[in-house]
Amino acid sequence: MGEAFDAVDVIITKRDRRELTDEQIRWVIDAYTRGVVAEEQMSALAMAVLLNGMTRREIATWTSAMIASGERMSFSALGKPTADKHSTGGVGDKITLPLAPLVAVFGVAVPQLSGRGLGHTGGTLDKLESIPGWRASLSNQEMLRQLDEVGAVICAAGSGLAPADKKLYALRDVTGTVEAIPLIASSIMSKKIAEGTGALVLDVKVGSGAFMKNPDDARELARTMVELGADAGVKTVALLTNMHTPLGLTAGNALEVRESIEVLAGGGPPDVVDLTVRLAEEMLDAAGRGGQDVRLALTDGRAMDAWRRMIAAQDGDPDAPLPVAGETEDILAPADGVLTTLDAYAVGVAAWRLGAGRARKEDPVQAGAGVELHAKPGAVVRGGEKLMTLHTDTPDKFERAKGALAQAFTIASHGSRPDLPPLVIDRIG
Amino acid sequence: MGEAFDAVDVIITKRDRRELTDEQIRWVIDAYTRGVVAEEQMSALAMAVLLNGMTRREIATWTSAMIASGERMSFSALGKPTADKHSTGGVGDKITLPLAPLVAVFGVAVPQLSGRGLGHTGGTLDKLESIPGWRASLSNQEMLRQLDEVGAVICAAGSGLAPADKKLYALRDVTGTVEAIPLIASSIMSKKIAEGTGALVLDVKVGSGAFMKNPDDARELARTMVELGADAGVKTVALLTNMHTPLGLTAGNALEVRESIEVLAGGGPPDVVDLTVRLAEEMLDAAGRGGQDVRLALTDGRAMDAWRRMIAAQDGDPDAPLPVAGETEDILAPADGVLTTLDAYAVGVAAWRLGAGRARKEDPVQAGAGVELHAKPGAVVRGGEKLMTLHTDTPDKFERAKGALAQAFTIASHGSRPDLPPLVIDRIG
Repeated sequence: MGEAFDAVDVIITKRDRRELTDEQIRWVIDAYTRGVVAEEQMSALAMAVLLNGMTRREIATWTSAMIASGERMSFSALGKPTADKHSTGGVGDKITLPLAPLVAVFGVAVPQLSGRGLGHTGGTLDKLESIPGWRASLSNQEMLRQLDEVGAVICAAGSGLAPADKKLYALRDVTGTVEAIPLIASSIMSKKIAEGTGALVLDVKVGSGAFMKNPDDARELARTMVELGADAGVKTVALLTNMHTPLGLTAGNALEVRESIEVLAGGGPPDVVDLTVRLAEEMLDAAGRGGQDVRLALTDGRAMDAWRRMIAAQDGDPDAPLPVAGETEDILAPADGVLTTLDAYAVGVAAWRLGAGRARKEDPVQAGAGVELHAKPGAVVRGGEKLMTLHTDTPDKFERAKGALAQAFTIASHGSRPDLPPLVIDRIG
Repeated sequence: MGEAFDAVDVIITKRDRRELTDEQIRWVIDAYTRGVVAEEQMSALAMAVLLNGMTRREIATWTSAMIASGERMSFSALGKPTADKHSTGGVGDKITLPLAPLVAVFGVAVPQLSGRGLGHTGGTLDKLESIPGWRASLSNQEMLRQLDEVGAVICAAGSGLAPADKKLYALRDVTGTVEAIPLIASSIMSKKIAEGTGALVLDVKVGSGAFMKNPDDARELARTMVELGADAGVKTVALLTNMHTPLGLTAGNALEVRESIEVLAGGGPPDVVDLTVRLAEEMLDAAGRGGQDVRLALTDGRAMDAWRRMIAAQDGDPDAPLPVAGETEDILAPADGVLTTLDAYAVGVAAWRLGAGRARKEDPVQAGAGVELHAKPGAVVRGGEKLMTLHTDTPDKFERAKGALAQAFTIASHGSRPDLPPLVIDRIG
């Protein structure tokens, strides 16, 4: 015994819609990390939190208890401000890749700890690993040196940050308790606060391809995270952005790296460029370096230089050809007209089935697999023209991918217009 | 893989307040029994059931799935009707002991599968085990022979009945999910239906010493169980009975056996006698043998004869002296007046702390420990008279027991009357 609380009492408190005390929360997170609170107890508590909610104070304490379960990093020795970005995940969301070097151009260090993909959204590390030689794992010391010398690093989070969150996240994944806003917010923010960034910009995606399907939920999640950031002394801003249709023209690992390099070369799809610039402006503002011409750094080569140094610092070869899939198959427009809808979720599932994503943590991904789009909503198309190209090394997957895409788009008569929200729906901060 | 369903989908269905299909329920119970659905998944589902409820159809299917997880017994070879009683548990509830032999007197066989106590309510098997030599474990064949020859058996449920329930009950106990009416009802009824009784009388306790603190919850539980019985072809009736104050004058293992023997000898406290007679009448009615003078069998020695045969058949010595605790301590009335309240829960906790109950399944119990009452609500008491006597083999427990009892009773001025519901509050069936 000798424990300060009893797990069943803590569960029953939340089950019966009462507030957990700070002491209960700190104990339950610590005891769970130590294995004294069992997995089945934490899953019952997580379900009670999902169904009954938590107050702002409870969420803040829960988050700080998760931070306290592990180490905290500090970038105070760097001598420059730091800013990080977190996206809640979407289809074709490769923004981190051009964004980190772009922000670094302006003297703000970007310590971007990222993850791998699971399900229909890709992971930033999976994308970068399609670059020959590039490695995701850095020691804390390597990370600090790269931030000092290059100004941007995208790497895997070490296992020392918020270990309670790692354990809890794996549990929520198998117990139907992922979709609890207090738990999503504290999971994201505990890692970002423990990582030690000075400023944080959140890209909360809304739409079919996002975790949050409607703006109200997304706004609540955004507000909760912004409050958590403020409570922890991290300057935090959130944008709500459109994820009804994929971002850019590619979904897949090497395909998205290629598109990111186009953006860093001053080209690329307008939505990817616009969101990259907007997020960079928010990060620079939050870090106290606002008011600069961010877009210029994409066209004059400075962001590309920073990218090349960032990739090379992690043993990647920025000049090596990117992998391409062994097989492709086109999907053609069935009629003339205007493409009015192109569903992000369907494209994400198709890319996943083609081999770009994984169903389980231990699955490998194909570097070259994915979906390439030739038109976005609003485009005029002609029957028989290519709408998309599917890429894979395992052509037996084409059928299932095409199945996912069968209802994914609408071609309406000429003069029709797509009914889509703007790219940036709202700003909270 | 090869599983018909995914556990996370099933959990999410109930989490999102949708109805589970019969196929989902049958699968999840079976897969849980097989270990394919993990403990942490079932606990999340149990919490979702507790908070979001189940429909009558869902509960009926859940119950039959738990029955299908194990063996079913049959008493059809007996050549006489069978009736069983189940109490949801209370303080001083020793009714099963005089009831089973009493009903057997009238040619109705009583196959009473019982359990051990946990927490503040005692277990029937713990009580009977204070009788020297008596054993709780019988084979199915021994049980059938005893029902044939003696007409009543009180024994431990074999591990083959509703194994899914055993696993789920242990899980609910540590995850704050005990108090879910659909799960309580299906747990009780799956065992009773699998046991094969023809008729069933439920004693649903209401009050501080009961699991159900208020009549509405108790009525809902009673109604749910009566419906489950009807759906399974078992004639089922429920009484809601008072558990604000302890039943009889004893709470503790050997103490309750002693009081039960007083009842079988034609004496004993009126509330114990009245409830025993009423439940016996309901059991005989439900078994098609109603309209007999039940009370007479307590005074003319027939019930006592049946008791002695029942105890002896399980190697117990009905003539052996019962164990007594090594130490006693009295609690005295602090003033003259009328005892208006005597809280069942406090008495139960005191008996438990004195050693009559256990905190964990594997703890031993003391045969002689418990609380003996010298007055019940309504009694006129004089300051300095004995109100209760505490019994234990471990006198260091007196302080904690007295702590539990400090606020347990009220002595009001002469002429005051206790405000208690009747012994039988309602009948559902």
